[in-house]
Amino acid sequence: MIVELISVGTEILLGNIVNTNAAYLSEQCAALGLSCYYQDVVGDNEERLCETIRTALGRADILLISGGLGPTQDDLTKEAAAKVMGKALYLHEESKASIQQFFEERGLEITDNNWKQAMMPEGCIVVDNPNGTAPGVIMAENGKHVILMPGPPNEMIPMFETSIMPYLGKLQDGVIFSQTVKICGVGESKAETMVQDLIESQSNPTIATYAKTGEVHLRVTARAEDEKAARKLVKPVVKELKGRFGSHVYTTEEEVTLEKAVVDLLLANKLTISTVESCTGGLVAARLINVAGVSEVFKSGYITYSNKAKRRLLGIKKSLLVKHGAVSKETAREMAKGAALVSKADVTVSITGIAGPDGGTEEKPVGLVYIGCSVCGKVTVKEYHFRGSRAKIRESTVSAALALMRECILEYYSEVTFGSSEK
Amino acid sequence: MIVELISVGTEILLGNIVNTNAAYLSEQCAALGLSCYYQDVVGDNEERLCETIRTALGRADILLISGGLGPTQDDLTKEAAAKVMGKALYLHEESKASIQQFFEERGLEITDNNWKQAMMPEGCIVVDNPNGTAPGVIMAENGKHVILMPGPPNEMIPMFETSIMPYLGKLQDGVIFSQTVKICGVGESKAETMVQDLIESQSNPTIATYAKTGEVHLRVTARAEDEKAARKLVKPVVKELKGRFGSHVYTTEEEVTLEKAVVDLLLANKLTISTVESCTGGLVAARLINVAGVSEVFKSGYITYSNKAKRRLLGIKKSLLVKHGAVSKETAREMAKGAALVSKADVTVSITGIAGPDGGTEEKPVGLVYIGCSVCGKVTVKEYHFRGSRAKIRESTVSAALALMRECILEYYSEVTFGSSEK
Repeated sequence: MIVELISVGTEILLGNIVNTNAAYLSEQCAALGLSCYYQDVVGDNEERLCETIRTALGRADILLISGGLGPTQDDLTKEAAAKVMGKALYLHEESKASIQQFFEERGLEITDNNWKQAMMPEGCIVVDNPNGTAPGVIMAENGKHVILMPGPPNEMIPMFETSIMPYLGKLQDGVIFSQTVKICGVGESKAETMVQDLIESQSNPTIATYAKTGEVHLRVTARAEDEKAARKLVKPVVKELKGRFGSHVYTTEEEVTLEKAVVDLLLANKLTISTVESCTGGLVAARLINVAGVSEVFKSGYITYSNKAKRRLLGIKKSLLVKHGAVSKETAREMAKGAALVSKADVTVSITGIAGPDGGTEEKPVGLVYIGCSVCGKVTVKEYHFRGSRAKIRESTVSAALALMRECILEYYSEVTFGSSEK
Repeated sequence: MIVELISVGTEILLGNIVNTNAAYLSEQCAALGLSCYYQDVVGDNEERLCETIRTALGRADILLISGGLGPTQDDLTKEAAAKVMGKALYLHEESKASIQQFFEERGLEITDNNWKQAMMPEGCIVVDNPNGTAPGVIMAENGKHVILMPGPPNEMIPMFETSIMPYLGKLQDGVIFSQTVKICGVGESKAETMVQDLIESQSNPTIATYAKTGEVHLRVTARAEDEKAARKLVKPVVKELKGRFGSHVYTTEEEVTLEKAVVDLLLANKLTISTVESCTGGLVAARLINVAGVSEVFKSGYITYSNKAKRRLLGIKKSLLVKHGAVSKETAREMAKGAALVSKADVTVSITGIAGPDGGTEEKPVGLVYIGCSVCGKVTVKEYHFRGSRAKIRESTVSAALALMRECILEYYSEVTFGSSEK
């Protein structure tokens, strides 16, 4: 079945609030196996509201409308929806009583406009709102379902979970199941080319690619009569993707981020880590420390933006900095080694680069970054060229550093296993 | 003039990402004096995209379309918009060259699908994208303006600010001039109450309040026949706001961020700074290092997430940590003093707190944060209680730390001036 989301509120059109309701409802609908082709935002204007509802009814089976159910004159959603559905409003005694109770419990005076919230379209289902005064409304006719919910997320979400989700579940044939294969160290267009044949050859499951900074996510989605059958369709495709991308796949779990994958790898191998950063100024450490439980592996972080700090904190020789420059392969190597020496961590990552907007030269342009990684004494240094603003270059550097750490740790252990370590 | 926003992307319809682009663009359009009646979201489907563009053209003068300009087969926005506008696509040589350069600089192989991004609608303006490979597009005909921008915010926002905003500004009758009064250390609802009378008493200029993490921005916007006249209307209102918020106003300049205000204050007073962070794991240093030219003032940054690191790097006594705990006023004080001692910086900022989701107790709940600041030996420590997710608590902490640094430096100098330093 097809669902369309309509968010009502001038505050969204003015950019005063971000429409998180739409993201929440979309995710829930996808999980319920409902197809969503459009999301609309419209202001508190009866004519435009009616037009939007009419258009949506022409192309969807279910309308999820949030916002505009409040007590003020601006709140017109119920009136507009009832008009389009050809229903009159009547005073719903139970809603009236519960509004009265809500105000009495809080010792608040009821102003007349509040009774507006007890007016309901004929023949509708009134949906309880335990977190506010505006009840929800379900109108169903000729196979179309128009569902009205309050706008504030702390009222809308509990109402959706308690009352609307079960209602939608009963309307559905079959379910949807998705799994995401997360990849690092491969660019978006290369990743897409590598799965083009799979994308083209099948419609269930489907494969969608999403580019993140320094990562690509491949989402595999299947529809089937029940979750078990849908999972069965997804499984071989995920296996195929894992085969194609090999060790670039860092997880297939929804909640695992790249930094969590790195921390998990450190934990699994009982390795500690220290960071030493120049142009990223602490962002790599901050990403790692975003992982709850990182305290078991994180030793210390050094931010050595100046040459003086590099010398004083890490013991890097002035002559090396003079000869090769602060942004050089050699300095990145010495930073990684120095951090390992002073912090006694098993793994260290070092970053030195030119984030711009100034400071670039022809030989060393803005965006040139060296990342070093030492794993139990074996040091790898890579050169990168990033583009964009200072913030973008730093963000790309952080993702590349996490990917490199992961790669170096995996390599170190595969070499140890095969007895070919150069340590 | 009327603007309509269209966000393109199946990932928005699936709820994988929150549509922050729409909020950003709406805010900017409101500031430019453009009326927005609808926001639409549609997936990567040519037929539905064409329908949405056609409908929007029927009710708006300007279409701001973001997303779907990438190199993959899914990316159909340019093709759909050109079709609706009746324009053929041709190979734009400059875009081709810049894509080639982008890949060559990175030593990456160009796959065939990338050339798709160099195909442009006849007669369009091609808009430079310094942060990615997909250029923007402006098509104008019969008083209608269709503007295409890439979806990733780090590409869309700079493109909007650099190229699209000036274009939209020229379409307008009269001009709009805005100035933003940026405030730190005052909560949103208090700030709103303090300006309620001004907001209600005037319509030109208008005052809009925007809550940011740890900050409130008050945007004063006037419309007049030319910029000079608009500036003249804005000036007395900005002056009034400065008077009401006093030293909480850290800037009235668009491009000055809170971290830049702090760095400027350090530079003006020839002060150096070092940071020492626990739960924020480098984010305060990273915010400071986001300011170009910070190298003159930034000495070093320490990330001491564990007690061991606090002892080893800063010389904090074990007995103090045992007696008061790592998250305590005393530890924050010793961290700030320790960092001043080991780094020899004039100003140091220290952070210790419980970012959650675990680790909270009844006595020390999640969200409890102590921030210390030492200015030339005078140490101030403040206690904070933040709410929300781990990420949100860390973000609030960083803003509070910057505000506290600013406050402590200003206080120190006002006391020095008046001869009442407790140094």
